[in-house]
Amino acid sequence: MNKYIIGLDIGGTAIKGALFSESGEIAFRNEIATPHDSGQAFFIDTLCDFAAALSDGHTVDAVGLGIAGILDPACTTLLESPNMPALRGMPLKAQLEQRLHCPVIIENDANAAALGELRAGAGRGLSNFLFFTLGTGIGSGLILNSRLWRGEQGRAGEFGHVTVYPEGELCGCGKRGCLEAHSSGTAIVRMAAAAAHQHSATALRAYAEIPSELTPKIVYQHARAGDAVSRDIFKAMALGLAIAIANVHTLLDIYTFIAGGGVSRAYDYFYPMVMEEIDQRIFSSVRGRIRLLRAELGNDAGVYGAAYAAREALNLAGL
Amino acid sequence: MNKYIIGLDIGGTAIKGALFSESGEIAFRNEIATPHDSGQAFFIDTLCDFAAALSDGHTVDAVGLGIAGILDPACTTLLESPNMPALRGMPLKAQLEQRLHCPVIIENDANAAALGELRAGAGRGLSNFLFFTLGTGIGSGLILNSRLWRGEQGRAGEFGHVTVYPEGELCGCGKRGCLEAHSSGTAIVRMAAAAAHQHSATALRAYAEIPSELTPKIVYQHARAGDAVSRDIFKAMALGLAIAIANVHTLLDIYTFIAGGGVSRAYDYFYPMVMEEIDQRIFSSVRGRIRLLRAELGNDAGVYGAAYAAREALNLAGL
Repeated sequence: MNKYIIGLDIGGTAIKGALFSESGEIAFRNEIATPHDSGQAFFIDTLCDFAAALSDGHTVDAVGLGIAGILDPACTTLLESPNMPALRGMPLKAQLEQRLHCPVIIENDANAAALGELRAGAGRGLSNFLFFTLGTGIGSGLILNSRLWRGEQGRAGEFGHVTVYPEGELCGCGKRGCLEAHSSGTAIVRMAAAAAHQHSATALRAYAEIPSELTPKIVYQHARAGDAVSRDIFKAMALGLAIAIANVHTLLDIYTFIAGGGVSRAYDYFYPMVMEEIDQRIFSSVRGRIRLLRAELGNDAGVYGAAYAAREALNLAGL
Repeated sequence: MNKYIIGLDIGGTAIKGALFSESGEIAFRNEIATPHDSGQAFFIDTLCDFAAALSDGHTVDAVGLGIAGILDPACTTLLESPNMPALRGMPLKAQLEQRLHCPVIIENDANAAALGELRAGAGRGLSNFLFFTLGTGIGSGLILNSRLWRGEQGRAGEFGHVTVYPEGELCGCGKRGCLEAHSSGTAIVRMAAAAAHQHSATALRAYAEIPSELTPKIVYQHARAGDAVSRDIFKAMALGLAIAIANVHTLLDIYTFIAGGGVSRAYDYFYPMVMEEIDQRIFSSVRGRIRLLRAELGNDAGVYGAAYAAREALNLAGL
């Protein structure tokens, strides 16, 4: 009998899902809007209906689920839920298992994506790497000895909240100078909005009165088109990233970093900027040995990772 | 037949050694001056004579050796040797095994000390911690899952060279803003020498003409006696340390840090300063949960750790 696993990726905007066959391929996939502020019962109902539709009539052996936020060490309950505050404190695993009649494995979304890249993406065959997502925020998952390093309380991999500038920008987390406050998509937009006001000789000037229309993509396009101010914004973003990457390397002696998330679409542009700065901030004896790869699974990393997390937790054969 | 292991700790000033009985206790110990600039052959001769004297007539099953510098991943050859440049590139393991007629296990000195604290010191019973030495420099050893994390190339745990201030002081390693440049004994002395010149209202003023006589201990004594400038120097040292500790916690989700080295004798004084700053730089949900312990083995951490490294590598019973 074939074994099927469902991988679910609960994002701030959409819930993505895929049915994986025993060979590890996606047999069927779908996507629905994330139900916000609709309460725990409605969320569970939505998720279970979505999973039922994804199963496509097959018996499902396990469901893996990646979600933003902090889980308890046993990965059963959502302790902190930035995108869906209503889910805070929810015993997600127990409730879903009761309804879905199969094991449900829950993982932090960035951790799940790191597992996806390890098994089926840019991290295939590697023992150690840090995967991070450059998006509205910066999430990450750390692979050590070919396994996810979760930390003592399951909170590991908060790469976005390491301090890069002790007196830097205020971060959404309440701390100052976090990587996320200097190198995320949000940081790019903040720098662009400030530049639109301050600099007359920039294409960003057009957004001085409509800063809410600024996106990382717009800044990227202007930078590519030769706008020096837009380029400097990416340079500042790259510098923060380089400081943080160099520090992880220096502490852990790992050499591979994998960038995912929406802003990683500008990978070709910021890659040389980041690499140049990294080399200034590591021992001269290891210069040129750090690798910054682009994630390969793109939007699928989450569902792949959730499915792999389920497989590994259950030690299922196949997939 | 009893099993004996020798632990050797090669420091910049002295070589410490101890003979460990099967029960893990020190049966005999000794110390000699480190032979500097005397070439590889003399170093090997000195070390072998010292080990022979330490063995005290017993048959030694293994020798563990901790030494500053960077070893190759297999821990056989000293790739970088800051204290004894003459040893660079030396196949230490092979040469010592040939002469000592027993297995020789070599480990970075801070890694060895971390192992010592794990097995017989402040880290007993813990699964995860960062041990670091506050001395002339800052070394460290990282314990994850009750094992030494060496990294991919055996260079892990360079806690002293993570960047805490991207535009900070120039470090001896050539980089800028390393923890070592802001929080080591050397950094304390540098700040004190500058303060002796700049501030008239400080007890450090007496050293304006004789800055070479300044030591971390003198600054500590003046701070304890109420000198505000000396206290501020320790506050600056504590702030750098707090930034670095908070970052390691945020990345790895580990909660215990163990301070050793000469400057850790001021632990009672800087402890509250460091803890206050750490709490500003971690998520509010984990405030109050970081522990900064004082190393317990003091000067013995190195020989203990070297002996434990030998035991673990050889999987010897006892000790």
